[in-house]
Amino acid sequence: MTDALWAQPHHDGSPLYVPEPSPRLGGRADVFLRVPHASDVKSAWVRVLVDGEPELVRATVDRRDGQGTWLRVSLPVGNPVVSYRWLLDGGPHHYQWLNGSGLHGHDVADAADFRLSTSDPPAPWATGTMYQIFPDRFAKSQDRPAPAWAQPAAWDDPVIGEGPDTPRQLYGGDLDGITAHLDHIASLGVGTIYLTPFFPAESNHRYNASTFSRVDPLLGGDEAMARLADAAHARGLRLMGDLTTNHCGDTHEWFQAALADPRSPEREFFFFTDYPGRYDAWWGMREMPIFDHRSPELRRRLYDGPDSVVARWLGPHALDAWRIDVANMTGIHGEIDLSRRVATTIRRTMAGVTPESFLQAESNHDAGRDLLGDGYQGTMNYAAFTRPLWQWLLPPQARPYEHGKYPLLPNLPGPLVVGAMRSLSGVTPWQATLHAMNLIGSHDTHRVASLLGDERLVDVAFGMLAAYPGVPMIYSGDEIGLRAMGPEYARLPMPWEHPERWDERRLALTRALFTTRAGSVALQRGGLRWLSVADDALTFLREAPGETVLVHAARADHSSVRLPAQVVGSELAGLAGTADLRAETDGWVTLPSKGPAFGMWRLQGV
Amino acid sequence: MTDALWAQPHHDGSPLYVPEPSPRLGGRADVFLRVPHASDVKSAWVRVLVDGEPELVRATVDRRDGQGTWLRVSLPVGNPVVSYRWLLDGGPHHYQWLNGSGLHGHDVADAADFRLSTSDPPAPWATGTMYQIFPDRFAKSQDRPAPAWAQPAAWDDPVIGEGPDTPRQLYGGDLDGITAHLDHIASLGVGTIYLTPFFPAESNHRYNASTFSRVDPLLGGDEAMARLADAAHARGLRLMGDLTTNHCGDTHEWFQAALADPRSPEREFFFFTDYPGRYDAWWGMREMPIFDHRSPELRRRLYDGPDSVVARWLGPHALDAWRIDVANMTGIHGEIDLSRRVATTIRRTMAGVTPESFLQAESNHDAGRDLLGDGYQGTMNYAAFTRPLWQWLLPPQARPYEHGKYPLLPNLPGPLVVGAMRSLSGVTPWQATLHAMNLIGSHDTHRVASLLGDERLVDVAFGMLAAYPGVPMIYSGDEIGLRAMGPEYARLPMPWEHPERWDERRLALTRALFTTRAGSVALQRGGLRWLSVADDALTFLREAPGETVLVHAARADHSSVRLPAQVVGSELAGLAGTADLRAETDGWVTLPSKGPAFGMWRLQGV
Repeated sequence: MTDALWAQPHHDGSPLYVPEPSPRLGGRADVFLRVPHASDVKSAWVRVLVDGEPELVRATVDRRDGQGTWLRVSLPVGNPVVSYRWLLDGGPHHYQWLNGSGLHGHDVADAADFRLSTSDPPAPWATGTMYQIFPDRFAKSQDRPAPAWAQPAAWDDPVIGEGPDTPRQLYGGDLDGITAHLDHIASLGVGTIYLTPFFPAESNHRYNASTFSRVDPLLGGDEAMARLADAAHARGLRLMGDLTTNHCGDTHEWFQAALADPRSPEREFFFFTDYPGRYDAWWGMREMPIFDHRSPELRRRLYDGPDSVVARWLGPHALDAWRIDVANMTGIHGEIDLSRRVATTIRRTMAGVTPESFLQAESNHDAGRDLLGDGYQGTMNYAAFTRPLWQWLLPPQARPYEHGKYPLLPNLPGPLVVGAMRSLSGVTPWQATLHAMNLIGSHDTHRVASLLGDERLVDVAFGMLAAYPGVPMIYSGDEIGLRAMGPEYARLPMPWEHPERWDERRLALTRALFTTRAGSVALQRGGLRWLSVADDALTFLREAPGETVLVHAARADHSSVRLPAQVVGSELAGLAGTADLRAETDGWVTLPSKGPAFGMWRLQGV
Repeated sequence: MTDALWAQPHHDGSPLYVPEPSPRLGGRADVFLRVPHASDVKSAWVRVLVDGEPELVRATVDRRDGQGTWLRVSLPVGNPVVSYRWLLDGGPHHYQWLNGSGLHGHDVADAADFRLSTSDPPAPWATGTMYQIFPDRFAKSQDRPAPAWAQPAAWDDPVIGEGPDTPRQLYGGDLDGITAHLDHIASLGVGTIYLTPFFPAESNHRYNASTFSRVDPLLGGDEAMARLADAAHARGLRLMGDLTTNHCGDTHEWFQAALADPRSPEREFFFFTDYPGRYDAWWGMREMPIFDHRSPELRRRLYDGPDSVVARWLGPHALDAWRIDVANMTGIHGEIDLSRRVATTIRRTMAGVTPESFLQAESNHDAGRDLLGDGYQGTMNYAAFTRPLWQWLLPPQARPYEHGKYPLLPNLPGPLVVGAMRSLSGVTPWQATLHAMNLIGSHDTHRVASLLGDERLVDVAFGMLAAYPGVPMIYSGDEIGLRAMGPEYARLPMPWEHPERWDERRLALTRALFTTRAGSVALQRGGLRWLSVADDALTFLREAPGETVLVHAARADHSSVRLPAQVVGSELAGLAGTADLRAETDGWVTLPSKGPAFGMWRLQGV
C-alpha cells in the first residue's frame, strides 16, 4: 500500500455508498463508487451474483463533487444475500477488482465480495459503546453467605489467577452493585452494559449454568435484574446478557434430569456416548456437557419461540440483547452442523419478542459464514481488530509474543496490520463490521495497560477503539488503568474504595473519546476509507452523510503524512482533546508526526 | 513474488504432503510441510478447526532430505471437512501464514484454508484427459431426415454463428460417428470422452431437452449410445454425459404435462408465477423453464435414487460420469438455496449405482462452496485456469480484450496471473483442484488458435493444459488447429474429409503432450510447487512420490531462470519433445530463455 490511498477509488457498505442497507428481495439497490480526481479509473462495472451466476452491470456517472466523480450501479437483488464487487478499467494494466478487502490487480475468489442483506439491520442503538461487566468483580451491594462450592474473598483480596481455586474465588459482586454505579458507566459515553452470565452456576464466571430459569440469588435474583434493567433503561442504557447455547453446567437441572431418568425428555439434549457416565463436553471438560441441537425440545426450551430462555429474558424490564458464548462452535459437533439454523432461530425468536433486540456472537476468528444478516448480527472482533491492533502496538521483542492459544503474536508494521484488518473484515458484510464488538481487552485477556506498557500506546489503543468501525467494548476497569497479566489475574475487583488506584488521566481520556463517539454519526456509523498506511502511522476517514472524521494513529515518531485539502478540507476541528489543524498555503494538510499519539478531527466543508 | 519461490516452505494436498487424502472422521491425519534449506522458518504449527474452534498443533521434524526438512503435524479430524493452515515462525517479522493461496505476512480469513474431506476421492481414472464432443458437429455415420424445427446443413456448409437459425442448423453428427473415430480420440492420450447433451431437444446444442428418457434418435438412439459406450469401454475410455438439472426445454414431457393438467404431479416441478402462461425460466428464456428442487417427485425422477435419470444412464453399457450444466445456479432461486442438497444428492445417487463414477459441474467463477468432497467433485475451471492463462497469453492490446460476459480481459504479467490462479484455486480443496476440468477452449468460447493468434502461444496454452493440476479438456477440433472467433461460429464440424485443413504439427504436439501426461503420475496427480514467477515465464514442479516433473512456460524471450540442482537435480530428461538439460559446474540449472515456448522435464534423483 502506498500513501496515496486517498487517490484510490472507494466503496464500502456505509450510507454514502449504499443508501439503502436492507433492500427488498426482487427489487434493486443503488451502490456508489467514489472515484477521486487523481484516480486513473476510466470505467467500472459491478459483478453481482444472481441465483449463483455472475452478472456484469456497467456503472454510470451519478454526479461530481470537489473530490471527484461518483459512479452508480443499480443492482438486482435476486437473493437474500447479494454478493457483488467492482471491476475497474484502472491501474497499470487497466484491470482491477475492488472488494471488501481492497483493490486487486487480478481476479479473486468471492469470499471478500461486498454483501448486502435483505434482512433488517440492527436497531440504531446497537452501535452504542459497550461496557463489559464480570458481575462478581464489579461492585457489591451487600454481604451474602457464600455457597459451599465457593471460596469467599474480601473485595481487596488478591485474585487467585491459577489453580483449582480460580473459578471458586467469590468476591460477591452483584446486580444492585451495578445499579449503584450507573453514574460512572453513563459518564463514559457508554450505550450498552454487557453482563457476563448471571444464571446460577458453581463458579464465579457462571459459564457453567445450573439453570436458565432465574437470576443467581448471589447476584440478587430476578428482582435485582429488574431493578438494574429499569434503572439502566431510565438512563437510555441498554442491557446485554451472555448465554451459553453450546453447553451448560453438569449441575444444570436439564442435565441432572437426563442423568436421573433414561427416559427423560432431557436425555436427548446431550450427547451421551455411554449413558449415563460418558458424554461429550466442551473441550472435554466434564463440568460443561454440550447440547445436541437436533433435539426440538431443547431448541424450544432454549431459543425457539416465545417460551424459550432467549425470549423470556428480553423485554422492557430485562435484556435488550444477547451475546452468545462460543457461538462459533454452537450447533457444530462431528458430522452435525446446525450452526446457521441455531443462529437464525435465535434471531427469529428475538425479533418476535423485541424487534429492536440485538444478537452478538462470541468468535475469535473468521466468522464470515455466521454474519449474513439473518442470524448473528455481530461478533467479538478479536480477528479483524484486537489481534491486528495488538500486533501493531506491542513492543518489538526478541522472543515473539505469546497470547492465549496463539503461539506467535509478534509486532508487525502498519501495512501488514491493515492487511490483516482488511482481509478479515472483508469477509463480513458491512453491517456485521459495523456491529462487530471491537475490544482491546476482555475477561479473557490481559489488561491492556499491562499488555502494551507505554501509556501513550494505551492511548492509541483506546483511540482506535473509539474511532474504528464497530461497537467498542470497554472492559470495566480498563477505563481507570487497571493492570494485570493473565486473563484470570485480570478479573480484578473494581477498586471503588481506592481512588488512589484510579488512573484519572486514563478515565478523562476515555470519557472524552467515547462521549465524542456518542455524539458523532461518523464515528458510530460512517464508512472506513483508508488514506495512508505507513509502518508507524495509520490514517483513515469515517465518512457519513453530513459528517466526516479524520483519524490519525501513530505508534512512534514517523515521516510526515500529508493530505490534500481537496480530500480533508482546509480547517480541521480537533475532537476529544486533539488540537485543530489547518491547510498550508500549498493546499496540503500535514498531520502531527510525533508518536505514540492519537488524534481525530471533524472535517469542514468537504 | 520473487524468483526464490523455490526457497519457500511448501504444502499442498498431494500425496507427498497429505499421504491419506480421505481420513476417517474422528481419527487423525498426518500433514507435512517441506522447509527448504534456504528457508528461514524456525518452527511451525497447524491451525485446525474442530467443531468450529481453532486449535493450534505444533509441528515436529519428521525427516531431512537433500532439499531440506520435512515437518509433520498429526491433525485431529473432527468434522467431515477439516479446515487448516500453517502458522510459521519465519519471514522478516517471524510471522507467516501458509494457506491454499500461498504465504501471507499477516493473519487472513479462512476461505483459502487447506481442506481435507472425509468423503472418498474420485476414482483414479477421473484425472484422465477429457475430449469434448458436441455431437452434432463431430462425425456423421448416416443421413437422416431432418425434423421440422431444424435447418439441415451439409457437412462442409459454413456455420451460422448468429441469429435465430444458429440453434436450428443441424449437421447431423451422431454417436456412431463418434464410435467410428475412437482411434483418433485414443491417439491423443485421452481418458474420457465428454459428450454435450444427447437427449432429444429442438436445437442442435440440446441443452433444452424434450425428455431425459431416451437418446435422441437423430444421434442414433439408445442403441447407438450402448454401442459407443461398449466400444469406448473396450478401449479403456470413459464416457461423461451432460445433464441440465437446472432447467429443461419447454417441449419437455414434464413441462407439457404440467401445462396440460393443473393437478398433474409435474406442475410442482416448475415455478409458475401465473399458471399456465407465466413461469420462471433460465435468464428469462421461455424455452428453458427452470426446475423447483423443493419437489420430492422432481428430485426422485431427476437425481434422487436408483430410478432417477442420473442413475439410469450410468453403467457398463452407458456413462461413467455426469457433467451438470450450470451447476452453480442449480437449486438456487430467489429465497431458495438447495444448491448443496442437489449436489450431495446427485453424488449419493451416483455412488449408489457406480461407486467409481465421477461428478463434474459447470461453473465459471469461484465454486469453492460447491467442492467440499461430498457433492460436485470438480468444476469447469474457467476461473482458476482458463481466464488467467488467457490473460497471460493474449497479446497486449490498446483496447482491453472483451470475452463473453467479461467486459475486460486484458493481458497481465505472470505475477498477477499466478495471483489469480492461487487466489481462485486456494478456495477449493486439493482434490477439487486435481479434478477441475481445465480448458483452453470449449463449445462456449472462441477457438484457442484464433484467440491467441501466434502458434507458439497456442503451443504454450496446450503445454499448460497438459501440465497444470486438473483434468485437461481438449475441445474437439482444437487438436488439429481449427480456427474461429465467436463461440457459436467455433462449433465447427470436424473436417474428416479435408486433411489439408488439419494442422499436423498441432496434432503431433497434442499427442505428445497428452500421451506423456497419460504416462506420468506427477502430471496426473502430483502437487503444484511454484519455483519462479516472472512477467514472461512461469516455472513450477509437479511432485509425486517417485516422480517429479519440472514445467517451464514462457510467453516471450525473458531473463534466464536459474534453479539450484539441489532442487531440480543435475540431469533433467526432456518430455514431449523438450530437449534435455544439465546443471552447470556451479551447481545451477539454467532454463531456456527463448519464448514463446513450453518445456517440461522429468527430474532424476531429487
